[in-house]
Amino acid sequence: MMNIKEIQGGVCAAKGFTASGIHAGIRKNKSKADLALIMCDTLCTAASCYTQNLVKGAPIYVTKKNIENGVAQAIVCNSGNANTCNADGIEVAEKMCNIVADNTDVKAEDVVVASTGVIGQPLDVTPIKNAMPQLVASLKDDGSSDAANAIMTTDTVKKEVAVEFELGGKVCHMGGIAKGSGMIHPNMATMLVFITTDAKISKEMIKKALSNDIKDTFNMISVDGDTSTNDMVTLLASGQCENAEITDENDDYASFCKALNYITTALCRKIAKDGEGATKLLECKVSGAKTLPDAKIVAKSVITSSLFKAAMFGADANWGRILCAIGYSGANVDITKIAVSLSSQAGVIEVCENGSGIEFSEDEAKKILTEDEIIINIDLGDGEYDATAWGCDLTYDYVKINGDYRT
Amino acid sequence: MMNIKEIQGGVCAAKGFTASGIHAGIRKNKSKADLALIMCDTLCTAASCYTQNLVKGAPIYVTKKNIENGVAQAIVCNSGNANTCNADGIEVAEKMCNIVADNTDVKAEDVVVASTGVIGQPLDVTPIKNAMPQLVASLKDDGSSDAANAIMTTDTVKKEVAVEFELGGKVCHMGGIAKGSGMIHPNMATMLVFITTDAKISKEMIKKALSNDIKDTFNMISVDGDTSTNDMVTLLASGQCENAEITDENDDYASFCKALNYITTALCRKIAKDGEGATKLLECKVSGAKTLPDAKIVAKSVITSSLFKAAMFGADANWGRILCAIGYSGANVDITKIAVSLSSQAGVIEVCENGSGIEFSEDEAKKILTEDEIIINIDLGDGEYDATAWGCDLTYDYVKINGDYRT
Repeated sequence: MMNIKEIQGGVCAAKGFTASGIHAGIRKNKSKADLALIMCDTLCTAASCYTQNLVKGAPIYVTKKNIENGVAQAIVCNSGNANTCNADGIEVAEKMCNIVADNTDVKAEDVVVASTGVIGQPLDVTPIKNAMPQLVASLKDDGSSDAANAIMTTDTVKKEVAVEFELGGKVCHMGGIAKGSGMIHPNMATMLVFITTDAKISKEMIKKALSNDIKDTFNMISVDGDTSTNDMVTLLASGQCENAEITDENDDYASFCKALNYITTALCRKIAKDGEGATKLLECKVSGAKTLPDAKIVAKSVITSSLFKAAMFGADANWGRILCAIGYSGANVDITKIAVSLSSQAGVIEVCENGSGIEFSEDEAKKILTEDEIIINIDLGDGEYDATAWGCDLTYDYVKINGDYRT
Repeated sequence: MMNIKEIQGGVCAAKGFTASGIHAGIRKNKSKADLALIMCDTLCTAASCYTQNLVKGAPIYVTKKNIENGVAQAIVCNSGNANTCNADGIEVAEKMCNIVADNTDVKAEDVVVASTGVIGQPLDVTPIKNAMPQLVASLKDDGSSDAANAIMTTDTVKKEVAVEFELGGKVCHMGGIAKGSGMIHPNMATMLVFITTDAKISKEMIKKALSNDIKDTFNMISVDGDTSTNDMVTLLASGQCENAEITDENDDYASFCKALNYITTALCRKIAKDGEGATKLLECKVSGAKTLPDAKIVAKSVITSSLFKAAMFGADANWGRILCAIGYSGANVDITKIAVSLSSQAGVIEVCENGSGIEFSEDEAKKILTEDEIIINIDLGDGEYDATAWGCDLTYDYVKINGDYRT
């Protein structure tokens, strides 16, 4: 298969796309941009996946309706207010689409709308209306960073990635931006991710590619076990790289999925590493499971354990908490077959074999766990299936950030 | 039905029981007692409920075997080491029972054994062996506090309660001690609780009473969502108050269950309020659910949400996080029918109606949430069932305590 090469440009790397982000006044803090626009100069095939929380942000309903026909052309997103649990939420989300349409050539029903921030406070559409002409005027083909900045909430770094890949001899591009820091937990439902590509792919296949991909990527991240109300992943394909349209599961589809997985995995790692208050990325690799669900359940349970996450913050090789989290996960495992090792750039250390502790150097373990990317390797020794989940440590700052988020 | 009167005495309030707690040397810190003994001068009927974690502490297996015949006479418990995930764990737990037998009239097979502390470090039985004569010599009928102290790990206060009640004109007593701070989460599995009574009750009925009670009490607490490997609730009945033995579900059984529920609810509240790092007890009362499981799932989901718990630490009425936790709970609810209010000694404030926010005074809310016992009232407006769960806020100190627990 072809090579994937990382490039610059985020959501503007693909042909046809521009982006912008400005301070519209939804947030009080004027130095923080709060409104983003991503625009294609042609209609795109499009797919979205949404939160599975029963409480859904109003924008989810509107986006779902707008994208049902498999096409879209623009994405508008505000931060600072989630437009969720508001009596007039859907009306406001629809107005946001109309405001985009009023200021561009895009039809309201081809706009993807998203909001992120506080739940249950009415979203005043006036600042969005007033800012839209400037937001549209700011659209540019190196505007991805501006958009990535504008969708951030408690994120500390903006999250962008882009790649170049080939489809039938044509050079294609794909790139994405993401936000998401707290309220991130398996079940999709976890963040905002906007991905664009200039590959040509049918409505059916773009939907299939995205919904398959998220099972192993965005559904395998956890920052705090809370599944958010608003989050979604949207993929737009402009088709401007002029490959033969992907309409079935051929080699080009496989290449497309591989590129997509590169983008989504990179964004997952960025999101987990920038979890609220996090100092470390935790990657839990489970192998030897009896079934795929067992592998996934174990990986997610470990990555979600508050006790384990706090131990990682303290660089404490308290592997008993890993065993404990496996034990209550509900997965079908034989505890006496489990082996655990911890690794990072600084090395690898075995801590548990056959479900019991083995002697190891605490100094060596400390050295390994002091790094900022830790891999927890769990071999269940009982089958062929594996899975990876991503998370972060639990820190003082998580509590600080969430102790008084609204003020 | 009869009155229940709170009295002093803990596990020694019931006739026949003595208790003691000393520093045996399992912990390095000499000022912290680490070995407890509870003893009855006659054989008791007995029941236990255990963790549902697949990873079970070795003492669980030994206690289960010893209590299978429905009788027991003594409880030995150490803190500082969980004797879990050790290759020789069961052997060590059996030795602990033998050591009790060697120093008393109690048979080894009538000893309930428990351990709590770090997982995966071999438990040296030598200090227990050496300390047992002194532990037995220290047994006294006001020794409940000593035992309650000795079983504490990261607990900050000892947990004891006792009551007086009547069975067929006879004055009976029941009392308990508990430990449990982190690693506490629904599914039993959550702490150590030892309860004694001088009521006369058959093996069958004591088992039924305990296993029914925990569904609404210990299975409804959560400190951090982690289900521990070691924890259990044990109930011993000496029969020395000379009531007519309870052998079926008659009025006396109902009185017995009511007294038991008083003890267990009181201990649940104490455990939740003393959750690791906690500054507040959170009591989530759900009403109007379609089914009992729905009521329980909602109550537990709210009490377990890290985001909500952090908001309570900050006395922030961020009710959106309550709706969010209801939404992802998996319960069958109609979001548009939900009403939420928050209350404490300082008053009550409505924050959500029909699933949407309503205007409320942030100052008033702050005043209510600054108290140390907060009630979250959730009316699902959709049925007849209710449930209560207990938890605590998420604080800096939780992270501090768990960031480097082993050192």
